[in-house]
Amino acid sequence: MQNISFYQQAFVGYLNDFTQEKEPQSLYGPINYILQLGGKRLRPVLTLMTADIFNGAYKQALNAALSVEVFHNFSLVHDDIMDAAPLRRGKDTVHEKWDVNTGILSGDAMLIMAYQLFENYESAVFQELAKLFSKTALQVCEGQQYDVDFESRDDVSIPEYLKMIEYKTAVLVAAAMEMGAIVAKASNEDKANIYEFGKNLGIAFQLQDDYLDAFGNPETFGKQVGGDIIENKKTYLYLKALEFSGAEEKKQLLNLFSLKPSDQTHKIQTVKDIFVSSGASLATKEIIEVYTNKAFAVLERLQISEAKKQLLKSFGQQLMNRNV
Amino acid sequence: MQNISFYQQAFVGYLNDFTQEKEPQSLYGPINYILQLGGKRLRPVLTLMTADIFNGAYKQALNAALSVEVFHNFSLVHDDIMDAAPLRRGKDTVHEKWDVNTGILSGDAMLIMAYQLFENYESAVFQELAKLFSKTALQVCEGQQYDVDFESRDDVSIPEYLKMIEYKTAVLVAAAMEMGAIVAKASNEDKANIYEFGKNLGIAFQLQDDYLDAFGNPETFGKQVGGDIIENKKTYLYLKALEFSGAEEKKQLLNLFSLKPSDQTHKIQTVKDIFVSSGASLATKEIIEVYTNKAFAVLERLQISEAKKQLLKSFGQQLMNRNV
Repeated sequence: MQNISFYQQAFVGYLNDFTQEKEPQSLYGPINYILQLGGKRLRPVLTLMTADIFNGAYKQALNAALSVEVFHNFSLVHDDIMDAAPLRRGKDTVHEKWDVNTGILSGDAMLIMAYQLFENYESAVFQELAKLFSKTALQVCEGQQYDVDFESRDDVSIPEYLKMIEYKTAVLVAAAMEMGAIVAKASNEDKANIYEFGKNLGIAFQLQDDYLDAFGNPETFGKQVGGDIIENKKTYLYLKALEFSGAEEKKQLLNLFSLKPSDQTHKIQTVKDIFVSSGASLATKEIIEVYTNKAFAVLERLQISEAKKQLLKSFGQQLMNRNV
Repeated sequence: MQNISFYQQAFVGYLNDFTQEKEPQSLYGPINYILQLGGKRLRPVLTLMTADIFNGAYKQALNAALSVEVFHNFSLVHDDIMDAAPLRRGKDTVHEKWDVNTGILSGDAMLIMAYQLFENYESAVFQELAKLFSKTALQVCEGQQYDVDFESRDDVSIPEYLKMIEYKTAVLVAAAMEMGAIVAKASNEDKANIYEFGKNLGIAFQLQDDYLDAFGNPETFGKQVGGDIIENKKTYLYLKALEFSGAEEKKQLLNLFSLKPSDQTHKIQTVKDIFVSSGASLATKEIIEVYTNKAFAVLERLQISEAKKQLLKSFGQQLMNRNV
């Protein structure tokens, strides 16, 4: 067992070896660019850590970890096209630096490369990894589709929203951890439990992301603060604010979320004020706590030492206290 | 062994069972639409036929065949976005009927579904199929990238063009056949040879497609006749016409391929006249013959009966005498 920065370094070293120049440069250049943009490398770190937790060796999990990271970046490239997002981790998105067609095709290649990374495992492990990966990847697509569909709907419920973020974000965190357990040949029960841990932590993580999108520090938050408000995204904050608001505030919020003004400063500030005054901000902090605690409760069922449980717990706590 | 229409029917029946309604409809609706647009089902028919040829049962190859067809349609959906193509098989393309974002995401889901279809095989066969599939799919992406790159280059050579169509089109025909052989547990030598047969036939097929794009019958050709000329595509016809033309005709051709006039009728006719008068049209027919014969030569090395070789040969001949 090692600390997080150890796994990060091990992973980044492996990633650097992977991102070599290949022909055609116009296809692989953008792939190397997005993979080298940095980020917390949260998902691959979880894969490596989980392999060690179940008495595997993290080194055996490097290809699975890389697959998860390549897939995650594939989804960022395609999502950024769909959201017409100019920035990713403070840098140009792929479709912005190149063009939309490059983003589509380089993304496609990344999805295939993610599968290829499993070829380094023997066939039974290969099949188990690829099966979990496909199920997860398809859920991620479905989550993204729900996210798109919600934009043009004004009757999105809280359960629908939670299902959307579970699919779009949480199942990949869950799968990243289960893949570490698969490589380490953990028991089926442990595999199912670590998946549940990751899923609940992933939901908490995305709700935290929604919160930081509105209330994060512009200095440290990689994306544009208020981005969800600009895009009129129906996040948990928004849905709770609608639920909690009186008729007047509700009308104001609905009106603000039907506009895309050229100067967004006033809109962002007004919406944030309503998020706080309605109690939506507090409710969001509370549900983040609920899902974090759900994750911690699953830990108790794992067949691992108390020290390892404590490590997973402190990892979860760190994640929930982040400001980036 | 059965005839082609038998395999077509068996495949379409299986495809119809596969294209059930699923949620979210906004993701799976476009997938079912493109899969039901019809077409010759050439690739999956080859998978089924090859399984029978190597004494497997075509029914065991249905999932592999469906995977190939789902992948092929994925690539059509994304390519049509990149080419801004309005029509596919005479109907609206996905991005035209819905929008670009729908095309991107539904395509992504199809690529994943193609892998999922291999889950029906035991792990050794699963791994062999998925490995061949990934290698092939990545080559298809590279081929598409070369195709895009060639648009803005004026020094594309014939060998470069042939490599591009090999990657973009032929390797999938080759892989479709090898997958049938894998399911039937053919020898490694037979697998390699049937791949070579399919690759050469696939190159001939694409060259024929280029030829028909200019000289096909508008009544029966599913796409817009002259589409490559409108798009200033550097096909074999064009590259050979440049090579064979005198200074004056060459200048005219280069000039025509630098324009996108609003009325294309005159441009298409002039270019086609040059294709014929320069001898490029004849040279294209000749190279189609060369690759068809290369494919037939590989047949001799297969460890199968003469009757089966004859069947593959007549299939190839039919393909080369098509006008759609």
